[in-house]
Amino acid sequence: MADYVMWGVLDVLQRGPERRAAQAAGEWSRTTFREIAGTRWTLVGFGAIGRGVAVRAKAFGAHITGVRRNPADDPVADRIAALADLPGLLPDTDVLVLCAPLTPETRHIANAAAFGRMKPGSILVNVGRGPLVDEPALLAALDKGAPAHAVLDVFETEPLAADSPFWTHPAVTLTPHSSGMSAGNTPRNDVIFVENLRRFLAGEPLENEATAAEVLAAS
Amino acid sequence: MADYVMWGVLDVLQRGPERRAAQAAGEWSRTTFREIAGTRWTLVGFGAIGRGVAVRAKAFGAHITGVRRNPADDPVADRIAALADLPGLLPDTDVLVLCAPLTPETRHIANAAAFGRMKPGSILVNVGRGPLVDEPALLAALDKGAPAHAVLDVFETEPLAADSPFWTHPAVTLTPHSSGMSAGNTPRNDVIFVENLRRFLAGEPLENEATAAEVLAAS
Repeated sequence: MADYVMWGVLDVLQRGPERRAAQAAGEWSRTTFREIAGTRWTLVGFGAIGRGVAVRAKAFGAHITGVRRNPADDPVADRIAALADLPGLLPDTDVLVLCAPLTPETRHIANAAAFGRMKPGSILVNVGRGPLVDEPALLAALDKGAPAHAVLDVFETEPLAADSPFWTHPAVTLTPHSSGMSAGNTPRNDVIFVENLRRFLAGEPLENEATAAEVLAAS
Repeated sequence: MADYVMWGVLDVLQRGPERRAAQAAGEWSRTTFREIAGTRWTLVGFGAIGRGVAVRAKAFGAHITGVRRNPADDPVADRIAALADLPGLLPDTDVLVLCAPLTPETRHIANAAAFGRMKPGSILVNVGRGPLVDEPALLAALDKGAPAHAVLDVFETEPLAADSPFWTHPAVTLTPHSSGMSAGNTPRNDVIFVENLRRFLAGEPLENEATAAEVLAAS
């Protein structure tokens, strides 16, 4: 999912839509773009996905704040913050990435109040769960320009309704819950399965065990 | 320029054109993509731009070979090679980035023989100089699928002719010599200018001095 996040953000900063329109129109029109260097990223949820994004964005020169429960420092973040700190972080955030699980605490964490604190030109990415975002509030916020763009892979209702305004909104990059659908998953899962089969037959503890409740929460 | 290179490559691996077409058509159709992790990048020219690309691509898990004259190891490359090694590197290269200066040695370095050694599915990026690429040979190679895609910011003749087949080629991402046009350049150049003005007035050596020949070669 980290590759997807970097793709979505770079396409906004590099002005992909304008570049493609210029190519299609045969126009040699040079325009500037924004670099990732110096941008401030707030990653809500700082598990495997958030840390994967952090490592990549830091290599571009971004400043990283990871938001999670565990307050310990993390070598891939410039700062670790708590969910309660989010309102204070938003006015300085250029890229807000939602990669947290859905819990009562995180439901609609990206709501009208949060968007009201975001910067003009900022970018929202949701690769977590649809209900992290209050969708009507996001549409209203995009129309005001803060955030300026949303990269959305998950939605409150999936598949997304055919008449959803997200499909055609010029400030929305929309994908159908596929940010994790790497062609590399199948061989990776095979390796884990074969190793766990070996452990199971040898009576050893399994890797990546999940409870039924965890599986349901992630599905 | 490094941000531009990552954008161009990610848009191919993430299947940006198909995703945008699906969004425009209102289609909820989930597709897989390729990750950068495990891909092999060959960077022809390993100065500031090549090394900037290397740092970013390595954070995604790419394997990096830097091609340059100086054979010394480099902490941001897995391997340093010479221009003479390029034919042997191409069959294993997923992403070939041209960011070398134009010299008699590098003119048309990406020619029919080189494309003949490239993998199906591989990607060519040219952010160096237009004449590094033999353009008719590239068009023929794209039609055969190796490389599968070209991200081109520079051309033998600029502005690119209105009737160039690159404008409309489905396997080409084309930008008008603007991969270096970061909005961050002006403030950065201002800082260098002010520092050099101070040094000049103090009689100290200047930073980033270039000979007239270097300026002409880079223009």
